[in-house]
Amino acid sequence: MSGPSTTSSPAATGGVVTAKGFRAAGVSAGIKANGKLDLALVISDTPATAAAMFTRNKVQAAPVLVSKEHLAKSAGVVRAVVINSGCANACTGDIGMADARTMAGETAKLLGCPAEQVLVASTGVIGVNLPMDKLKSGIPQAFVSLSNAQGPQAAQAIMTTDPFPKESCVTVVIGGKAVTIGGMAKGSGMIGPDMGPVLPSATMLAFLTTDAAISQPLLNRALSEVVDDTFNAITVDGDTSTNDAVVIMANGVSGATIGDAEYPQFAKALYSVCLDLALGIVRGGEGATKLVTVTVSGGASSAEARQAAKAIANSLLVKTAIHGGDPNWGRLLAVAGRAGVAFDHNRAKVTIGSTVLFTDGRPYDDRAPEAAAYLKGHDIAVGVDLGAGTASSTVWTCDLSAEYVRINADYRT
Amino acid sequence: MSGPSTTSSPAATGGVVTAKGFRAAGVSAGIKANGKLDLALVISDTPATAAAMFTRNKVQAAPVLVSKEHLAKSAGVVRAVVINSGCANACTGDIGMADARTMAGETAKLLGCPAEQVLVASTGVIGVNLPMDKLKSGIPQAFVSLSNAQGPQAAQAIMTTDPFPKESCVTVVIGGKAVTIGGMAKGSGMIGPDMGPVLPSATMLAFLTTDAAISQPLLNRALSEVVDDTFNAITVDGDTSTNDAVVIMANGVSGATIGDAEYPQFAKALYSVCLDLALGIVRGGEGATKLVTVTVSGGASSAEARQAAKAIANSLLVKTAIHGGDPNWGRLLAVAGRAGVAFDHNRAKVTIGSTVLFTDGRPYDDRAPEAAAYLKGHDIAVGVDLGAGTASSTVWTCDLSAEYVRINADYRT
Repeated sequence: MSGPSTTSSPAATGGVVTAKGFRAAGVSAGIKANGKLDLALVISDTPATAAAMFTRNKVQAAPVLVSKEHLAKSAGVVRAVVINSGCANACTGDIGMADARTMAGETAKLLGCPAEQVLVASTGVIGVNLPMDKLKSGIPQAFVSLSNAQGPQAAQAIMTTDPFPKESCVTVVIGGKAVTIGGMAKGSGMIGPDMGPVLPSATMLAFLTTDAAISQPLLNRALSEVVDDTFNAITVDGDTSTNDAVVIMANGVSGATIGDAEYPQFAKALYSVCLDLALGIVRGGEGATKLVTVTVSGGASSAEARQAAKAIANSLLVKTAIHGGDPNWGRLLAVAGRAGVAFDHNRAKVTIGSTVLFTDGRPYDDRAPEAAAYLKGHDIAVGVDLGAGTASSTVWTCDLSAEYVRINADYRT
Repeated sequence: MSGPSTTSSPAATGGVVTAKGFRAAGVSAGIKANGKLDLALVISDTPATAAAMFTRNKVQAAPVLVSKEHLAKSAGVVRAVVINSGCANACTGDIGMADARTMAGETAKLLGCPAEQVLVASTGVIGVNLPMDKLKSGIPQAFVSLSNAQGPQAAQAIMTTDPFPKESCVTVVIGGKAVTIGGMAKGSGMIGPDMGPVLPSATMLAFLTTDAAISQPLLNRALSEVVDDTFNAITVDGDTSTNDAVVIMANGVSGATIGDAEYPQFAKALYSVCLDLALGIVRGGEGATKLVTVTVSGGASSAEARQAAKAIANSLLVKTAIHGGDPNWGRLLAVAGRAGVAFDHNRAKVTIGSTVLFTDGRPYDDRAPEAAAYLKGHDIAVGVDLGAGTASSTVWTCDLSAEYVRINADYRT
């Protein structure tokens, strides 16, 4: 993935078509008024085992509902995912449901597979119907463009306000065989994912492919565990989308089979790809200039540590202070205090970088200049110890800039 | 209160010293570097019955802890409140507790009353100790300035980032006698109050006075009921402060006594003053250009309706869309869906002004231009019906502008 010069990002080594037996395409179907790529297709040459997590928002977009339906009907056997940007097909009533089914159906016809073996995803404006004439001509156009070199185009085609595409890939040797896991993701605003097993939240989309063979229960477990510590642990604005989805397809072409023995290695590789993609989303968060790692320790439980970390990561006062390089550590403590979790003021601790600014019930505000110097950087770590236990959680976010407001104040216009 | 020309605000008719038997002062003690007024004193000439609500944040500033202590010790009999701006005296350890006690003690000495009859409040930067030399010379200075004409100065002295002071007042005839309730408030950012009976949240301070006579239990009940529908129903950024406080003093000088029979009339008058002050806080929210009234109906319970309304009012995507005049109604529905409350997509309804944009499970996006025209105004009402019951709740917020970011990115510098 290629980030802006202000933030570091890992070198791209591949993406959604690096694993064997996958092809992709990204084309311009004319959904976006500016003519940019807006339709992506990712296919497995052979039927793949699939797992997915979707938004837990009670308002679920038509493509989410249709994809859940298809996964259930196909018993997790999937050939393709078709994705459009520029229109979320959310809150679009019966027409929206029919349109999502048509997207899958048209793709399935070209692939010669049952419609339920195609999943659908959409991202863009809510409440507007899809321009189906454009999709009907765009899908065949994507189909003829399919290749094992079009990963970057597919990653471009799923972008909305993203400043750069997100791709990642690793290859590991499992049981003597090279297994590749790759993927692409999009998301910049409306990022506060909250995804469950057939779960997520905030338009964040990620599509993963692997040439390992793995049973659906084990693939579900890996995706669920990894998403919880990666995509579900990032936030840009705390707003959970109606369209979030993470899909993984495993086609077994590598010849390597993942069983219980191989699971830890597979899950670890999947984690590294998902974390890379998730951090790419945060680095490219709307208006972001800094990547912020929020670590909460001393929690009474992991859930409470996560809750406090999310509250800090979503606090406008924390995000604006970091944006301005203001070592206003009191805001971190104040958010921890209102986060609704067990908290002991006298055992609490606040750090910015490696500078301790509050501990043992008293402030060390004389160290603020040291923290201010640290905040000039672009990779910022802040920590709060709740003083209430031993559990911890890490969440990633970005700062909040005036540019965020500009982007969101005229998204449609 | 005088608002910016972009928002309407009621004409000032008085404030914290309009009720009989109260005096106030606002002076510059030198706590604020810019020399602006930063120390306020409000006193009752005779012992008054007091009730108060403080932040429910688990991090409670020293003045909050000391005021609770004093209220308990004095059995709710209070002579004065001393308030400084420019420093919150929060997260300041044992020194901070001693400083808050000294502020009350110095004031009590001048008034010739026990220290516990003086309450204390502070607002400003967290984690920095009070400049006590300045307070020790400022308090006597405020004492000699006390008058029944210094309400506006007191209202100025409690301001931090507030663009204008907030004062309000009503006089009603109860049992043939004129009863006045007046008050002043401050708050612009870190506004997401959550106050309990000895309760609130986010630096929001309000000081109310009345010349009615009323028992402490009844005064507590009135304050608690009214605060829940006014100060606790506003939000600027959803951040709950360590210092929030609302204090009311009733000195009985009017000769009118509030019993159960007079209670509804008194509570109604108190509500009108508190709502006026609360809306003043929102109109003067950091960077605000619009007052936004969020009404959620169709809730399974009042608590759920309030929860959904707060989620909408705090959504960055909603606030930025309104700022930009973008009728992005799908964001309202998406937030309702993630608010963690009962919600029926097919019975839900979304309105902007009087324009219905989603109902009966389908969008009416063709009406977006009508909503866009309405959003050019500065007093905006949006509504979501959750379709899950009959309960409703109204919350007030402001839009989110680039100016909010500018203010908060360099609050300390």
